[in-house]
Amino acid sequence: MSDLIQPRTLKGFRDFLPQTAIPREALIATAVDVCRRYGYSPIDTPVLEYAEILLGKGSDETDKQTYRFTDHGGRDVAMRFDLTVPFARFAAQHIGELGTPFKRYHTGPVWRGENTQRGRYREFVQFDFDMIGTESTMADVETILVAHDVFTALGFERFSVRVNDRRVLNGLLEQLELRPRAVEVLRSLDKLPKIGPEAVRTALLGIDGLSESDADAILDLARISGTNREIVAQLGQMLGDNATARAGIDAFSELADALEAVGVPKGRVRIDPSIARGLDYYTGMVFETFLDDLPEIGSCCSGGRYADLASLYTKQRLPGVGGSLGVDRLLAAMEDLGLVDGRSTWAPVLVTLFDEEGRADSLRIAAELRGAGIGVEVYPEAKRLGTQLKYADRRGHRIAVIAGPEERSAGTAQVKDLVSGAAHTVG
Amino acid sequence: MSDLIQPRTLKGFRDFLPQTAIPREALIATAVDVCRRYGYSPIDTPVLEYAEILLGKGSDETDKQTYRFTDHGGRDVAMRFDLTVPFARFAAQHIGELGTPFKRYHTGPVWRGENTQRGRYREFVQFDFDMIGTESTMADVETILVAHDVFTALGFERFSVRVNDRRVLNGLLEQLELRPRAVEVLRSLDKLPKIGPEAVRTALLGIDGLSESDADAILDLARISGTNREIVAQLGQMLGDNATARAGIDAFSELADALEAVGVPKGRVRIDPSIARGLDYYTGMVFETFLDDLPEIGSCCSGGRYADLASLYTKQRLPGVGGSLGVDRLLAAMEDLGLVDGRSTWAPVLVTLFDEEGRADSLRIAAELRGAGIGVEVYPEAKRLGTQLKYADRRGHRIAVIAGPEERSAGTAQVKDLVSGAAHTVG
Repeated sequence: MSDLIQPRTLKGFRDFLPQTAIPREALIATAVDVCRRYGYSPIDTPVLEYAEILLGKGSDETDKQTYRFTDHGGRDVAMRFDLTVPFARFAAQHIGELGTPFKRYHTGPVWRGENTQRGRYREFVQFDFDMIGTESTMADVETILVAHDVFTALGFERFSVRVNDRRVLNGLLEQLELRPRAVEVLRSLDKLPKIGPEAVRTALLGIDGLSESDADAILDLARISGTNREIVAQLGQMLGDNATARAGIDAFSELADALEAVGVPKGRVRIDPSIARGLDYYTGMVFETFLDDLPEIGSCCSGGRYADLASLYTKQRLPGVGGSLGVDRLLAAMEDLGLVDGRSTWAPVLVTLFDEEGRADSLRIAAELRGAGIGVEVYPEAKRLGTQLKYADRRGHRIAVIAGPEERSAGTAQVKDLVSGAAHTVG
Repeated sequence: MSDLIQPRTLKGFRDFLPQTAIPREALIATAVDVCRRYGYSPIDTPVLEYAEILLGKGSDETDKQTYRFTDHGGRDVAMRFDLTVPFARFAAQHIGELGTPFKRYHTGPVWRGENTQRGRYREFVQFDFDMIGTESTMADVETILVAHDVFTALGFERFSVRVNDRRVLNGLLEQLELRPRAVEVLRSLDKLPKIGPEAVRTALLGIDGLSESDADAILDLARISGTNREIVAQLGQMLGDNATARAGIDAFSELADALEAVGVPKGRVRIDPSIARGLDYYTGMVFETFLDDLPEIGSCCSGGRYADLASLYTKQRLPGVGGSLGVDRLLAAMEDLGLVDGRSTWAPVLVTLFDEEGRADSLRIAAELRGAGIGVEVYPEAKRLGTQLKYADRRGHRIAVIAGPEERSAGTAQVKDLVSGAAHTVG
């Protein structure tokens, strides 16, 4: 006999056992459900693409981390590192058939050969939703509402979706004659939560042509707070004369109207002029989502509006807006907040098997419960009852149905509540 | 400006647009739902594994077709070509923590660099369910019931799960003193539906030591038909004295009892001694599932019992039983049989947008319907009504809600049935 092969996973890769696979399934199902209710449709794209499709789209770092190889046919191929680049390729290829506006959600694993010492995984699941082919602020508003509804549906009570608009800051920079410095300013502002206003001020002053009063004006903008209506009013006074900023402020105003119309509780969606998001490609609304009880984990859902999704693959301009859910981060947060119950089964009931003669009876009881929509597992062997109940406890079944010879002849069964220990006879 | 990159997928790979992604989502959700109701739990494993874990487990052909490369850390890695080998590795690694019996379902894409001229894809989705750590016939019976319930839940009415047991043929071969020829006999029998009994007889006679009367006895066994009870009785007469065959016949008998106990309609699950399944590793029950209206597509769900899942990775013996759903094959069948409606959206309702002033109102109507669990898309721009209704028609929305200035001031809305064309005012 040959030696055994050591069963192991690659570094940075992991198995999901039921107690972690179940909450992940539930989380994704919840996000899917909200997206469906808003009219987003599912798509899927291949895990492997031509390398030229994927590479040179993210950062140099992303290119280096991408799993790339030559396939059997000598093609230069790569595994997707996100769901955005494949969506851009997909949209360019199919938009004629799909028509616009087009709303999609897409979930699946992506791969990055990252340094695992930072606690990162090399395989992780993304969940993205986007609406392309429209510049309507309605699409921005719906993106925010989807993010809000996902967090509510997941059972979070204390969270805030923080919304900003690139055009407000751009308007200020136009006034300060610093518009060409926008990317640098954004990158500095993006560090605000981490390094604080003083350090950001220092960073801003390092930008070519930016004066002390410019830095103060930028930090003053980021510091504006209050209710959504108050912020809209204050921004209107400060920047209402600038057409670029005006468009952003009007979008804020429309968002505030929408939040009232659909009854979002106050404070859940907040206009926040300090939200920067480092990515250069956002052009209008941007948002991040924070859990009040776990601010240190950072944003769990973010996104924004972009001017053109697929310009590398098509001449058709495809403006859009979308968001991305941090599946792993949210799962960890749900565990921390006690929103995950650690069960290893979706089925609440275990039907025990007393003896070989009871097989058909156990199956019949299980079939009846399943017919009523209840998940039921039948223990497959007539082991000691203690063994079967221990199994139920370990799996997380809540109810055990016990039918021994006496119950069978009486046409009854014992139903045992495994949480309270209470038992009663039914039949 | 640089040239555009041609948006294209690799040969043998494909995108899923909403009208195909939706029925695939629905199909997988149905299978997941049935598995959950039977107490199977989800697991997940990485797409990439050490090559030594995956290779040398299937056939030489599978090894050749496997996507294999060297990763950034110089590791010899490969993309999974099925969900069975990763499950064996997973079970060996975690069975101590999981405990037995252990029931899992697992769905996800797998990759094989097959010849695409045969209409095969190089990326396709598998759906597997297994129960390991028990040799109980109850587990075999439940496997069959899961297969049955999945087909019923998918809306198929005319199908049959065909069940056989390796031990019956093995018993006959013991009687004929041909037990060492079992694999060759099985491979010949597996061709029965394709090449017919005469050609199989010729193939059998080509096996070393197999006489004409042996071939006739084997074909006679495969030819046995009737109701499940009749077949059990006939097999009992023929082979009841052989202990190996007896175990298989008893299992058939237990299956027949179970089918009656849970009320499976007659004919849906049929004992069929001609079912061979070519795979050598099955040791007991085997099954295949056929659609009566599309027999030519072959089995859409098959599986069986195996003696030991993970012997390459652990000394712990893990007997089990399971099945695998042909997701792509079933999707094609459902299209052929008109079980797929071609919609591009999960949301039945489109709320139109009459003018910019109506935005908050449209959102409010949509939020109310969503609150009642109804999927609603809001058209994001105040385009001509005709454009919006054409969009709804293209997507497959069934209802349009129209609220113009008149309706708004009256606090009403027009509800238009897009199938019948009927419209009425509500509010």
